Amino acid sequence: MIIVLHGAATESQVAQVEGLLLEAGLRADISRGVEKIVIGAIGATDETRAVLPEQLQALGFVERVVTVSTPYKRVSRRAHEEGSTVQVGDVAIGERVPRVAMMAGPCSVESREQVLATATAVQAAGAAILRGGAFKPRTLPYDFQGLGQEGLELLAEARAATGLPVVTEVLSTDQIELVGRYADIYQVGARNAQNFPLLSALGETRKPVLFKRGMATTIDEYLKAAEYILARGNEAVILCERGIRGFDSEHYRNIFDINAIPTLRRLTHLPICADVAHGTGRTDLVPLIARAAIVAGADCLMVEVHPDPRHARSDGGQSLTPDAFAAMMSDLHRVAAAVDRTV
Amino acid sequence: MIIVLHGAATESQVAQVEGLLLEAGLRADISRGVEKIVIGAIGATDETRAVLPEQLQALGFVERVVTVSTPYKRVSRRAHEEGSTVQVGDVAIGERVPRVAMMAGPCSVESREQVLATATAVQAAGAAILRGGAFKPRTLPYDFQGLGQEGLELLAEARAATGLPVVTEVLSTDQIELVGRYADIYQVGARNAQNFPLLSALGETRKPVLFKRGMATTIDEYLKAAEYILARGNEAVILCERGIRGFDSEHYRNIFDINAIPTLRRLTHLPICADVAHGTGRTDLVPLIARAAIVAGADCLMVEVHPDPRHARSDGGQSLTPDAFAAMMSDLHRVAAAVDRTV
Amino acid sequence: MIIVLHGAATESQVAQVEGLLLEAGLRADISRGVEKIVIGAIGATDETRAVLPEQLQALGFVERVVTVSTPYKRVSRRAHEEGSTVQVGDVAIGERVPRVAMMAGPCSVESREQVLATATAVQAAGAAILRGGAFKPRTLPYDFQGLGQEGLELLAEARAATGLPVVTEVLSTDQIELVGRYADIYQVGARNAQNFPLLSALGETRKPVLFKRGMATTIDEYLKAAEYILARGNEAVILCERGIRGFDSEHYRNIFDINAIPTLRRLTHLPICADVAHGTGRTDLVPLIARAAIVAGADCLMVEVHPDPRHARSDGGQSLTPDAFAAMMSDLHRVAAAVDRTV
Amino acid sequence: MIIVLHGAATESQVAQVEGLLLEAGLRADISRGVEKIVIGAIGATDETRAVLPEQLQALGFVERVVTVSTPYKRVSRRAHEEGSTVQVGDVAIGERVPRVAMMAGPCSVESREQVLATATAVQAAGAAILRGGAFKPRTLPYDFQGLGQEGLELLAEARAATGLPVVTEVLSTDQIELVGRYADIYQVGARNAQNFPLLSALGETRKPVLFKRGMATTIDEYLKAAEYILARGNEAVILCERGIRGFDSEHYRNIFDINAIPTLRRLTHLPICADVAHGTGRTDLVPLIARAAIVAGADCLMVEVHPDPRHARSDGGQSLTPDAFAAMMSDLHRVAAAVDRTV
Repeated sequence: MIIVLHGAATESQVAQVEGLLLEAGLRADISRGVEKIVIGAIGATDETRAVLPEQLQALGFVERVVTVSTPYKRVSRRAHEEGSTVQVGDVAIGERVPRVAMMAGPCSVESREQVLATATAVQAAGAAILRGGAFKPRTLPYDFQGLGQEGLELLAEARAATGLPVVTEVLSTDQIELVGRYADIYQVGARNAQNFPLLSALGETRKPVLFKRGMATTIDEYLKAAEYILARGNEAVILCERGIRGFDSEHYRNIFDINAIPTLRRLTHLPICADVAHGTGRTDLVPLIARAAIVAGADCLMVEVHPDPRHARSDGGQSLTPDAFAAMMSDLHRVAAAVDRTV
Repeated sequence: MIIVLHGAATESQVAQVEGLLLEAGLRADISRGVEKIVIGAIGATDETRAVLPEQLQALGFVERVVTVSTPYKRVSRRAHEEGSTVQVGDVAIGERVPRVAMMAGPCSVESREQVLATATAVQAAGAAILRGGAFKPRTLPYDFQGLGQEGLELLAEARAATGLPVVTEVLSTDQIELVGRYADIYQVGARNAQNFPLLSALGETRKPVLFKRGMATTIDEYLKAAEYILARGNEAVILCERGIRGFDSEHYRNIFDINAIPTLRRLTHLPICADVAHGTGRTDLVPLIARAAIVAGADCLMVEVHPDPRHARSDGGQSLTPDAFAAMMSDLHRVAAAVDRTV
Repeated sequence: MIIVLHGAATESQVAQVEGLLLEAGLRADISRGVEKIVIGAIGATDETRAVLPEQLQALGFVERVVTVSTPYKRVSRRAHEEGSTVQVGDVAIGERVPRVAMMAGPCSVESREQVLATATAVQAAGAAILRGGAFKPRTLPYDFQGLGQEGLELLAEARAATGLPVVTEVLSTDQIELVGRYADIYQVGARNAQNFPLLSALGETRKPVLFKRGMATTIDEYLKAAEYILARGNEAVILCERGIRGFDSEHYRNIFDINAIPTLRRLTHLPICADVAHGTGRTDLVPLIARAAIVAGADCLMVEVHPDPRHARSDGGQSLTPDAFAAMMSDLHRVAAAVDRTV
Repeated sequence: MIIVLHGAATESQVAQVEGLLLEAGLRADISRGVEKIVIGAIGATDETRAVLPEQLQALGFVERVVTVSTPYKRVSRRAHEEGSTVQVGDVAIGERVPRVAMMAGPCSVESREQVLATATAVQAAGAAILRGGAFKPRTLPYDFQGLGQEGLELLAEARAATGLPVVTEVLSTDQIELVGRYADIYQVGARNAQNFPLLSALGETRKPVLFKRGMATTIDEYLKAAEYILARGNEAVILCERGIRGFDSEHYRNIFDINAIPTLRRLTHLPICADVAHGTGRTDLVPLIARAAIVAGADCLMVEVHPDPRHARSDGGQSLTPDAFAAMMSDLHRVAAAVDRTV
């Protein structure tokens, strides 16, 4: 931790800072410049790092407190220099796995016919995992909220028919048990990116979690939130960039933050997914941004596929038809090969 | 709903749009210009409005779908032309109540001494409601997470000692019952602004809810989320602007979106609170932004007060001392009077 | 300047940092923690501060470079502990002047009748300065671009008729001489907030400059840009918050960043203006945000007034009628009095 | 244009809207729903579109005005269904040209040795165009502002030595003539993205313009600004995504908006460049985001190369060494081939 005071700070002010640091068991290294006095605080623990910055700010005359250590220990690449691999049945996901796993399926599970048709089609085209929402977080209470348990059962049926593992969203702690009975991977959506009770509870399970970044979550906040899951013992976490909120949503719903992919790669050992359906919100952008995500390093992709997007009960505008999905997969084969991966 | 096609759209494309609308029970009014064809869809219901826009987008050739009706019916001012009043014990909050209710207290409840001393001091200075966190949503799992039930008990003790009603945060559906036993107002924090299961469950209670806007929640998303609470029958909702995320957090943590106050006033009948502690993140800005919030029309304010900010376990940098709080209250008396309100 | 290396950095890496610092004439104070090594660089000059951070980043293994000194020396409050006053004819503007100067007038100068009628009306209601655009920066080349020199002449005529000093926008260096012949204050708009040749050239004049913040300019970038004007010798600069770009422009065009007002007050001695017309983009918000700006500390305000907004050639939607302006002024008298100012 | 009124709007209000439209020579098609009245305005011209929306807003009871036509006529793909090609000496740039042109060179021209060494190295590795700044827009007046005319002469010397055409920045109208004597392509930087006098003046030349998007410029604003250049007769414009401002700049300077590439492709016929140096601000991200830009459809790329980044006078942290550049080029050969392009 570094504390910056004005160069004209008094001895008593410097002493107050030192006092707070000593009280907390830290050592203070002081550099005096003409314009600024810089105090390096050595020996901080997780606990002192959690409270000292705000307490130092409360001194009023402290100009700035800069935290320099990595607070997300289990998530950090330092904890695991080799990238970790998340195993879901036969499917492995991670930087050391050549195949970029494709997660595909409808936004919402709507009917047996819809989910089975979609599952069969995406499997035929090379998808590794079936996605589908049974509990849907919808902006408005009057929107279709998903089929709930019936949707989960239909997903299980589609898995039985195709062998594809299933990823589906869990919205709250009291759904964990139920969703866990059907899902192979829990999905945590962008709106729950800082729902700490949910993340902690998922940390108590031993099932993989696909954890999406929030719409306005910084990279550091995101990794700290992921730490909630690992801190409880569940290390099977896949991070997922899904587009952030920008100042312009006229032509696409979100800004797909492509820089986040290599940055997360550098900071953490966890596998990285790219949700290019939400990251764009437009069918015509999906195949191009899917390419981009792969060459930038994504370890898995998520897209939405619907047999009849114009009758979809949600997200029709960003869902591919099965034919478009198959065409995209064939294009991605070439692109992935150029960076020594497969799809 | 308005659907925009290119002026050179074919008759068959126009017919496809009409077909989807008719299927859904709507009527289509078509205006043909040289550059664009504009189709007004008349007769939409909540249900059709929820699915049609995405389905129309899925047609591919539709350039744009504009939704024109107000989807948050219970929250809308149309539902209740006179502003509504939320009653909490003896304290009334709303645009028709002259007194701007001040909610003050520590960020976290830390000890009996701390919470009682703060409660007594803020009451003496004119606060109407005591705030204090027992369950804290912290960025990192290693940060202090609050005293939990013990914190709630200390708040109840402070209420017994001072008579001040208590507002405290609830983080998940499974805390509703416990928190409800102690709190007079449930607080929903910015990170849960789109936690729909939590909002729905609070809609089943009949206790007031202080519902904070999320860091990147648009006004429309915010009102739609509030609709989840009212849709279940709980109309005692207080909205709360608490600062949004901007592109610059060097000098203040959030951007306090002052425009939101008169805008919410126009769109909804619900009372409006301003959390100027989180809206600024700096003690020195709090009294000035508190003034601004009052003259822009806020019906209540929330601030953080701690007897010893430099030893606070959270948010020390934005907490006022009791003396600073009293000085602010006396300043706000003059300012409120200039707009025919009191504090 | 502070340089942060990983705790496991090698001696040779530390030596490379020291080498670069010594080469540049700085001293290095090294604090070694377990997780990080922190190097305080003492003795930086403006010149070294300008190049060293990027050069250090280029070392690859440097995790972070934190600049701690204030780079905008002339603009900084340290340069002038008492707030400075800008004098425009009889009108004084600054924190030590009780009167909050109101700048009012049409967005664009459209005709003799329009500008004279507006000037007379705003003067009667208490405005201190007449605003009006002769050269307009318009989003599209086909929009009305202003009357140019004819507009300047009409502004001068309105000044002669009312005695009000005139503020009008200058768009490029080659307009400075012409605009300077008519204007009492040069206005630099948001789109030119980092037009450094224009700012430098205005620094060579000795006429006051109303310098607006850009739509996505950070506070530090803004103050550094203002430094361009002062560095050339022109100290008569008025800063102006005019709304920043946010993620939601459905209900108001910009986010009026009210926190910027007290923050600029703390960081700089320059007078601070609030353009509440652009800051909101809506007539109904203007009077409320005008109140807020005054109590938060603005030294002057800018609003748009048009005798017939529904026929205005630009910004009709945020222009007040003369009657609405007069009503606002009378309301602001009361509000300003509550914070010991006048309008 | 579409005007939305509340369903309970009076006949007189509807008539006022019709009146304004008729006055302006438009026809009004009215659709009456229960909740809203929607008025389609048919026959708008560029001129009416420029003023009517604000005038209609000024009516107060108008809830919303939606503009549906494309206001950037020359820039629009409708004007030129086949993508246009910009020719710079032997180098062609555009969607119909298989080769993705690489623009590479130092951020600032610093010396003869530096620029010649860099030019020779980037040419050897396959660059098509030499970039280098002679006039630099720097955040602070004390930063290195470029060598000016001497820098231009050095660029011309490097062109003579290598045959590479030169792209360099022009900051203001009064530099156009001078820069034009040396440059093959004018560069307009992000800070001048809405400097309309500069864009208009460049429209009067017949030299290609590389026109960068601003930090907070929407896609529509960007295309409207480009229209300023084409409206004056210069059609040789290359658009350039260079990263936008986001809410998190801890790990990368800007958000590279990859969605913008296919979106610009759809909306305009102009060639599209990706400045992956500024789009990331970090050397280690450059090669990965360069890959992503190519597969998403970029027609040219811009990167920064310096023989000794740790002694660069600007942007050292995002400059590649010549070796790193050559390695990147060889990687991009494979990636480009996978999407049927070359570098």
